[in-house]
Amino acid sequence: MASVNAEEVGSNKQVILRDYVTGFLYVTTSTIQLKVPEGSNAVLVKNLYLSCDPYMRGLMRPTGSIKASYISSFTPGSPITGHGVAKVLDSADPNFKKGNLVWGITGWEEYSLITETDFLFKIQDTDVPLSYYTGILGKLTASNSVCMPGMTAYGGFYEVCSPKKGEYVFISAASGAVGQLVGQFAKLLGCFVVGSAGSKEKVDLLKNKFGFDDAFNYKEEPDLDATLKRYFPEGIDIYFENVGGKTLDAVLLNMRIHGRIAACGMISQYNLDQPEGVKNLMYLIYNRIHIQGIAVFDYYHLYPKFLDFVLPYIREGKIVYVEDIAEGLESGPAALVGLFSGRNVGKQVVVVARE
Amino acid sequence: MASVNAEEVGSNKQVILRDYVTGFLYVTTSTIQLKVPEGSNAVLVKNLYLSCDPYMRGLMRPTGSIKASYISSFTPGSPITGHGVAKVLDSADPNFKKGNLVWGITGWEEYSLITETDFLFKIQDTDVPLSYYTGILGKLTASNSVCMPGMTAYGGFYEVCSPKKGEYVFISAASGAVGQLVGQFAKLLGCFVVGSAGSKEKVDLLKNKFGFDDAFNYKEEPDLDATLKRYFPEGIDIYFENVGGKTLDAVLLNMRIHGRIAACGMISQYNLDQPEGVKNLMYLIYNRIHIQGIAVFDYYHLYPKFLDFVLPYIREGKIVYVEDIAEGLESGPAALVGLFSGRNVGKQVVVVARE
Repeated sequence: MASVNAEEVGSNKQVILRDYVTGFLYVTTSTIQLKVPEGSNAVLVKNLYLSCDPYMRGLMRPTGSIKASYISSFTPGSPITGHGVAKVLDSADPNFKKGNLVWGITGWEEYSLITETDFLFKIQDTDVPLSYYTGILGKLTASNSVCMPGMTAYGGFYEVCSPKKGEYVFISAASGAVGQLVGQFAKLLGCFVVGSAGSKEKVDLLKNKFGFDDAFNYKEEPDLDATLKRYFPEGIDIYFENVGGKTLDAVLLNMRIHGRIAACGMISQYNLDQPEGVKNLMYLIYNRIHIQGIAVFDYYHLYPKFLDFVLPYIREGKIVYVEDIAEGLESGPAALVGLFSGRNVGKQVVVVARE
Repeated sequence: MASVNAEEVGSNKQVILRDYVTGFLYVTTSTIQLKVPEGSNAVLVKNLYLSCDPYMRGLMRPTGSIKASYISSFTPGSPITGHGVAKVLDSADPNFKKGNLVWGITGWEEYSLITETDFLFKIQDTDVPLSYYTGILGKLTASNSVCMPGMTAYGGFYEVCSPKKGEYVFISAASGAVGQLVGQFAKLLGCFVVGSAGSKEKVDLLKNKFGFDDAFNYKEEPDLDATLKRYFPEGIDIYFENVGGKTLDAVLLNMRIHGRIAACGMISQYNLDQPEGVKNLMYLIYNRIHIQGIAVFDYYHLYPKFLDFVLPYIREGKIVYVEDIAEGLESGPAALVGLFSGRNVGKQVVVVARE
């Protein structure tokens, strides 16, 4: 065994997958060598911001329990992985050097030795918050990075929904990482936009910060069909689906002819053993509705176009992006689990370190 | 009251809608004047063939009970209407004259006085069975004629499913009016095609008459998911949906990435007070599946192209069309209701008279 210089070893706090099925996480501390090992092409990074995304729930089930080719599960006993922003401490890869800020696939831990550097990218524009690279400015970087909000909102809304000025747009989980952007894109195009969310605070955000035409708290609406008829007496042209279940059933009753549904997520269903049955699918035929399940990597080729589109809006303040920042790696498991009870307000990010 | 020449009055057997909700039909005989009334532009026809279509079930509910703009209900106490083939007995419309064979919207009765002649068309090609104009050769003729099999199969398969040679195609209710054509179109293109149906006789028809690669009787398959995995170990690229409910749920588990579903009908659900819930919609997202509800009038513009495509195949015997002929108007109600228990083998037609 090669001798290890004491100065090159650091303590390394990590978030570990305890076991499959229940998907419990725990935080532990191991040690890590703070130099890239000889003969490797890896990059050693200090993690700064980690992204919390609903798709990560699926990776806490054994591989193969869902027939979906792009999902390969986390490994029990190992740190979970995800999208993050990090700083390079040491690099054996000529594309990166010490001090570079990068974004891509990293571990939920203080320091990560990244061997698959294909999924790591240098950050060019640093005049926007670094944490945005976990969200609005992220793009697909690997087959297991599924749901980058900015590109998902962009591809799902413009490519799947074929939106036109003046159309009626409904967004569920509308203050979330993707929903808040879809709503702002729709407003920029001149659509009528209503969002649903799960608290007064989020509803206020939708109306006052993101400029939605209207918004409601679904928890206060016992009859969602009646609610949607109130907000959309003419019906809905475009539904951006983030929740599934009862909401989808009510929406189907209110879609206009040739309506379009981008199915981005069904967060209400992820933690159920038996998903709720959706009963109103006949309305797909009555009104010739189009549903398309979306995943951001189908829109990968649009990334340069997307950056050209979105960066000026961010700099001018015409698109705002709200993040819910959890401080410290210890807060990571609760932040991730909180997505499923709607605890977060805006895109959920974990700060491991600020620099 | 104008005097009526006895020779101009004939007895007129009719199929009447008894009442809404339960949709019971009865056959009665009234009288009809066998001349077009003075001052009208109507056409008087003798009905020959009537088409039985699942969409007619929806028209036995009060208008407005389903939010679907194209459905206007039948009127209790009046004969129901539908697609048919007829012979002109008298005409005040210069486009038609006595002896013409026509197809279009007519009544379920022996003789009909048709006032809306916009939805009536002269039959040009008489070298194919006349009854085909209720089915494979029919097209949309009015806002309440919803489901013409030939155009539905053509538009739904080629426009919605974007089929490619070698793809895996599954069709439910595959021996029905639409399914048998979709399967033959898919085989002509070089797809692998499996159909489901509800009897041994229908399964034999699929394999031996329509040239499907394989077929099964869904009533003998307790686990449809396992059945589909047996017939499609590689998964399904295209599903042509005619039945809904449990079948759709099992199909969702077996669709390949970027699979396409044309939702043409959900006949298993039409007579249920509470439709079955479909639980596997998450797979729309996992595998980025596209579902499109279809109605034939979205493909109206393709009719000339469709005729050029299909007539040579029919004449050469490369496309066959199986009809289930019910004899006599009295058999009409049972033939129509029989659609919902799968009693018919092939396209259900009622012969009122042969000439």
